[in-house]
Amino acid sequence: MSIDAAMPETAEAAALEITTSEITAAEIEAGRRAHELDRAHVFHSWQAQGPFAPMTVLKAEGSLVWDGEGNRLIDLSSQLVNTNIGHQHPKVVAAIQEQAGKLCTIAPQHVNDARSEAAWLVAELAPGDLNRVFFTNGGADAVEHAIRMARLHTGRRKVFSAYRSYHGGTHLAVNLTGDPRRLPNDSGDSGVVHFLPAYPYRSYFGSTTEAEETERALRHLEDMILLEGPQNVAALILESIPGTAGIYVPPAGYMEGVRDITRRHGIVFIADEVMAGFGRSGKWFAIDHWNVVPDLVTFAKGVNSGYVPLGGVAISDAIFETFRERAYPGGLTYSGHPLACAAAVATIGAMREEGIVENAARLGAEVIGPRLRELAAKHPSVGEVRGAGCFWAVELVKNRDTREPLAPYGGSSPEMNQVVAALKAGGVLPFANFNRIHVVPALNIPDELLLEALEALDRALDVADGFVED
Amino acid sequence: MSIDAAMPETAEAAALEITTSEITAAEIEAGRRAHELDRAHVFHSWQAQGPFAPMTVLKAEGSLVWDGEGNRLIDLSSQLVNTNIGHQHPKVVAAIQEQAGKLCTIAPQHVNDARSEAAWLVAELAPGDLNRVFFTNGGADAVEHAIRMARLHTGRRKVFSAYRSYHGGTHLAVNLTGDPRRLPNDSGDSGVVHFLPAYPYRSYFGSTTEAEETERALRHLEDMILLEGPQNVAALILESIPGTAGIYVPPAGYMEGVRDITRRHGIVFIADEVMAGFGRSGKWFAIDHWNVVPDLVTFAKGVNSGYVPLGGVAISDAIFETFRERAYPGGLTYSGHPLACAAAVATIGAMREEGIVENAARLGAEVIGPRLRELAAKHPSVGEVRGAGCFWAVELVKNRDTREPLAPYGGSSPEMNQVVAALKAGGVLPFANFNRIHVVPALNIPDELLLEALEALDRALDVADGFVED
Ligand SMILES: Cc1ncc(COP(=O)(O)O)c(C=O)c1O
Ligand SMILES: Cc1ncc(COP(=O)(O)O)c(C=O)c1O
Repeated sequence: MSIDAAMPETAEAAALEITTSEITAAEIEAGRRAHELDRAHVFHSWQAQGPFAPMTVLKAEGSLVWDGEGNRLIDLSSQLVNTNIGHQHPKVVAAIQEQAGKLCTIAPQHVNDARSEAAWLVAELAPGDLNRVFFTNGGADAVEHAIRMARLHTGRRKVFSAYRSYHGGTHLAVNLTGDPRRLPNDSGDSGVVHFLPAYPYRSYFGSTTEAEETERALRHLEDMILLEGPQNVAALILESIPGTAGIYVPPAGYMEGVRDITRRHGIVFIADEVMAGFGRSGKWFAIDHWNVVPDLVTFAKGVNSGYVPLGGVAISDAIFETFRERAYPGGLTYSGHPLACAAAVATIGAMREEGIVENAARLGAEVIGPRLRELAAKHPSVGEVRGAGCFWAVELVKNRDTREPLAPYGGSSPEMNQVVAALKAGGVLPFANFNRIHVVPALNIPDELLLEALEALDRALDVADGFVED
Repeated sequence: MSIDAAMPETAEAAALEITTSEITAAEIEAGRRAHELDRAHVFHSWQAQGPFAPMTVLKAEGSLVWDGEGNRLIDLSSQLVNTNIGHQHPKVVAAIQEQAGKLCTIAPQHVNDARSEAAWLVAELAPGDLNRVFFTNGGADAVEHAIRMARLHTGRRKVFSAYRSYHGGTHLAVNLTGDPRRLPNDSGDSGVVHFLPAYPYRSYFGSTTEAEETERALRHLEDMILLEGPQNVAALILESIPGTAGIYVPPAGYMEGVRDITRRHGIVFIADEVMAGFGRSGKWFAIDHWNVVPDLVTFAKGVNSGYVPLGGVAISDAIFETFRERAYPGGLTYSGHPLACAAAVATIGAMREEGIVENAARLGAEVIGPRLRELAAKHPSVGEVRGAGCFWAVELVKNRDTREPLAPYGGSSPEMNQVVAALKAGGVLPFANFNRIHVVPALNIPDELLLEALEALDRALDVADGFVED
């Protein structure tokens, strides 16, 4: 189905939401109680629990959420960049309700129709010969199992992973991670070797062009592999487009080069598509932007927009062969959970029927990209804008020449806090990290809501401009 | 609510199921297609993928499941010992459907009413001052995060864990695991030290009485801690009643002793209640059988019977304090997932309303325990029966005096396969591990179904008796 045919339906639904949604006094009161219980009993991810002051969400529909006071916000975060089809997509909600009425759960060793169907669909969408799917509950365990498969397939132990990356919160996954969240967890024993990624805007190699960055970053990577001993390296894991770490799209030739290096040295290439996959970048998988087939693809989030916890690993034929006669020594109680898989089947179906991936590509090419470039031209606080589909970063700087970030690597700053506050005051729920604002809406956000959010971003960048030093 | 008041409702519902459930030819045909797609695309937990011949489940209700040919089986496995309230409990199904219509997902940093409520209920049920809850997607990540909390709380690294235990499939969790599934994954670098558990029937200490086993196992544990250096030991993790590894209930005094040793040495005591918790043993948590409050409790499975993937860690006030001002360096996209939490709220509610935990205690004391002891008296192949609530193991041996198991530790045997096949032929879906049959039905299984299943077990034990050597 073409985008044009799909869009009116989506836009219509969104218009409906905007007019019919109201928050009652009773809902606000219930939200207050939820907030109290949260502060008394919920231990939150990544936070110092004491000072943490979470926002209450009373309601969410499409690309809108309502906070504890009933304020309507445009969701430019897709939460943790997972609600690729927006909130409460009616087709997926109905599929979950139907599956719940039929069969909520069944052990992974039994055949279940929803799981079979989901595996088939994912295998069909995945690049090349990635024909088998191992389901997990989320991204971190997908990454953990992918590493295990690679280690057992190769009989090697070391794993290469990029700095400025995120791969999850369990022990091995957080040790693979190349952002500061690893540091308090770094056990120095995980067998992970971190290499410097290709990142043209802040080149670690002194490159001044993309071509130079590609060449130097690849040489660096192969040098490190040779120094660590290729015969010791089981896997290289890389986000196809690094997400939380900055949506820095790899320069032309880089991914092909990584594929070539890993193939030559017999290293399993794992593309981590947990955030970049399922349409986020305007293609089903971000790796499809290049002519590259990884050996393993990890996924989660967009596979069912997080409506039910689900992740997984798509597996090449060669790696599958390793476990044809030899037991795979890994598993989990909820592998291929029927409710999660039914949500994935419905999500993929809705994305196809409504041309949601094509719409993401259109929004990136025709709305977000052009508008962000205008904002970059207008606002001296914008160092760079970059991205694809509905996956964009706005990098804020104090000085365009020195590229000094508006918040230090690994931290926040009063300046960034003011920018984020301005965005919220402008009616937007943003995704911010260090000195960056990420523009990561649902892939089916109605154009008018997206434009409204980008207007708010324009005004927030006025605040950022106030911090520019020259 | 008393058990007596609750039981008729359950029994009535079950009777209804038995009479109204039928499998149509179309359902069988759909099951065939699901089986084909499964073999083509699903990568299964813990299996050699080639020879694996999974059973199709077409339908499940209460304590019944129907296989791919439409045969009715009594579910004596609770799948992976997780459907504590049976399949498709109408109250929980309705709650999932309602929450799905309201709000499927929201990021963990926002306040959500279902999450708040679930945290409050779990904190209320958890022993002592375990007043905060960190939610995960399942058991393995609960264990991973509990270890992290312990390490950061103590500033120490080593973790003590028992042989003959299971703690999950991610890298750290499987390294904590004390069963053979660890061995292909053993990286020798995880900081885990395995100790020998108290296991009266197969004492590692040559004990001949329970009291002796308690004393010797505790002395062994403390000796090992002293030799490893208590100042290096962050945590001790122990299943309150080890599950998959054999449902070997710790002898009197053992748990109190472990609590005492860990307290004296400043070691965080983590009770892994992923399988034993939420009523399985006839109490809300198995640790409640003793007068012991751990520092952390990991849970999953029974918290919502696995209807939606959910796990978590209940956290003591002292450990919470460590993360009051200092950021907890861990998290996951689906922490406190609304759909999963709504299922937990409904599950706990149904368990309370229907006296399901009390019923598990009654079934253990009045039905399963007495009947298994009769079977043990009758069948020379039964080495030992043991358990509590709806959590029982039947240990099969070739010889009662030597206690030679009917399948070797870590493996299966043609003999065990025949016993399991006899159980299935007798209309029972069993949980088997090595030389053991576990009797782990839903806690609300109607008495007549349970008795029917125990009849089938009686007949299967005739098969086992055929292998007894003297
Ligand atoms: C690239 C990438 N990998 C892995 C993960 C971990 O996924 P989860 O939070 O579901 O464990 C994330 C989460 O943000 C991610 O962005
Ligand atoms: C005691 C115990 N801990 C942890 C786990 C791991 O849970 P999950 O399979 O949900 O990761 C299990 C699973 O059987 C378990 O029995």
